[in-house]
Amino acid sequence: MGTELVVDVKNQIKHALAEVKKKRFENVFFVACGGSSALMYPGKYVIDREAEKMDAHLYSSNEFIYRNHSKLGENSLVILCSHSGKTPETVESAKFAKSKGALTVSLTNEIGSPLAQASDVVLKYEWGQEANAFTTNYSVLYQLVFGILKTVEGNDKFGLIEESLENLQTVYEKAASQSHEKAVKFGQDYKDEKIIYTMASGANYGVAYSYAICILMEMQWIHSHAIHAGEYFHGPFEIIDEETPFIILLGLDETRHLEERALEFSKRYGKKLVVLDAKEFDFSGIKEEVKGYIAPLVLNYVLRKYADNLAETRNHPLSKRRYMWKVEY
Amino acid sequence: MGTELVVDVKNQIKHALAEVKKKRFENVFFVACGGSSALMYPGKYVIDREAEKMDAHLYSSNEFIYRNHSKLGENSLVILCSHSGKTPETVESAKFAKSKGALTVSLTNEIGSPLAQASDVVLKYEWGQEANAFTTNYSVLYQLVFGILKTVEGNDKFGLIEESLENLQTVYEKAASQSHEKAVKFGQDYKDEKIIYTMASGANYGVAYSYAICILMEMQWIHSHAIHAGEYFHGPFEIIDEETPFIILLGLDETRHLEERALEFSKRYGKKLVVLDAKEFDFSGIKEEVKGYIAPLVLNYVLRKYADNLAETRNHPLSKRRYMWKVEY
Repeated sequence: MGTELVVDVKNQIKHALAEVKKKRFENVFFVACGGSSALMYPGKYVIDREAEKMDAHLYSSNEFIYRNHSKLGENSLVILCSHSGKTPETVESAKFAKSKGALTVSLTNEIGSPLAQASDVVLKYEWGQEANAFTTNYSVLYQLVFGILKTVEGNDKFGLIEESLENLQTVYEKAASQSHEKAVKFGQDYKDEKIIYTMASGANYGVAYSYAICILMEMQWIHSHAIHAGEYFHGPFEIIDEETPFIILLGLDETRHLEERALEFSKRYGKKLVVLDAKEFDFSGIKEEVKGYIAPLVLNYVLRKYADNLAETRNHPLSKRRYMWKVEY
Repeated sequence: MGTELVVDVKNQIKHALAEVKKKRFENVFFVACGGSSALMYPGKYVIDREAEKMDAHLYSSNEFIYRNHSKLGENSLVILCSHSGKTPETVESAKFAKSKGALTVSLTNEIGSPLAQASDVVLKYEWGQEANAFTTNYSVLYQLVFGILKTVEGNDKFGLIEESLENLQTVYEKAASQSHEKAVKFGQDYKDEKIIYTMASGANYGVAYSYAICILMEMQWIHSHAIHAGEYFHGPFEIIDEETPFIILLGLDETRHLEERALEFSKRYGKKLVVLDAKEFDFSGIKEEVKGYIAPLVLNYVLRKYADNLAETRNHPLSKRRYMWKVEY
């Protein structure tokens, strides 16, 4: 599976953890924008559950700078991400974090980018159809997060996550293959919808969020909103009827009950329900103890296939933009 | 302004802080659902900025229980809220937090409710047209939050916030009166819209969130989504055009730049923009140092008048529900 790249990712993580080992960290800040921020949500879920002492915070880059969190300082580890490494707010966030004495570790696809240059440690991830799951953004982030937990607090799941991530590509391919017909049908059935909600909880909420804001709103100009499955019953559920489409995610983590409850209600009053349930996928090679953490990655991968089909039936390529990278903002 | 109730609120806060003083707290968890959760967002913003050591976390009640945050324990202070005091997940959250050794402080309108009974300390707030701002939920929460900061860390803004909140009702009334024509026009101009987005950042994001999920989705069955003004440029902004309505909030806190940037862009490509700018309101009686924290309360108050008008022109009372309190869920 591209042994050189795998070795390279492992070496990069080793290098990052050597830097982490030099200081005592009290908290971790996840800082990015849009899709790069969304991929960090499960990382925060991991630290919330697994860390004995470290706290985790997650902010969109400009909010991170202007909010000026009082606990950001020399004992902070700031994890940033930008695919191009050029997102101005994220580059500024790295500089801001360094000015406060924090250690900055950045994930990017562009090793010579402004974000890479502004950060103490850089982790390059691979991207696209050819890239093995082990070398991509979600995987590199998890290796870093579990590596930090191991290095700072002696958490013992690093080996489990590493081995599981090495087997992730096979899980991806089986899940995508198994979902092929459903993905095609999604493209056909939902091509004329003006709004599609997404819903999830726990480690999976970030996937629902990125699907709403990046895939549907940004890449398809379809109205959307990622509803938290627990919040659903305290407002949002009044919107559901037989005409309103919902993509409902069911993961394998501790909050699955929330997603199941939301689905059960939606089935009673809704008709246009697209359900992706991680329980239906083959997680062979993924260690039992980390399946809940891995599920959002698999859901995200499969959902992308749904997006490909939607883009095709709507004749609206995922790359089409009207403002992003085209006008001043 | 109802001196007895004011004295009563102050006494309740005093009693709560006496309990707070008995222990050493390392973190604060804000736990509630829907609108009660949204009102805590600015409380988290305050602790994020003001606390020297305490960390703040905010979760929807069921997420709080199932996520099982590892830093919840004997040094945790858990602030809960439910208007009726009957929200099952929030009552369970209080029991869960107590089982972990945390101190539970609950806000509710119902002093004998299950939530009140399950909590260590209860703060009753007033509600409705007749209630003075000082005695209502946002104000009681701020008195508690700044009181905790004073008691645990010696933060000096408690007096400033208390005095400002005593003058809040006058600010509310002037702002509502000044906005009357705009609120009426909003009801007329937007009565036929199928979707209305809201947008804000920092201390104001919770107001945008509650307006989206409680007012628009729950009470008006209008599609919505609270967009974070910093995230806007990383996906959501591709949705704006001359037909898509946005309610854009501008507050007075440190993140105002984000809201201004989002508004500036929206003006170039959107036409249906409803702008509420706290700078236009008369904040006499509010101390300079806490104006940014008070702005969301004022925006929230004025926005409710907009909702009243929308409900009237749509002939869809804010109290109308199809599922909530009516069916099993």
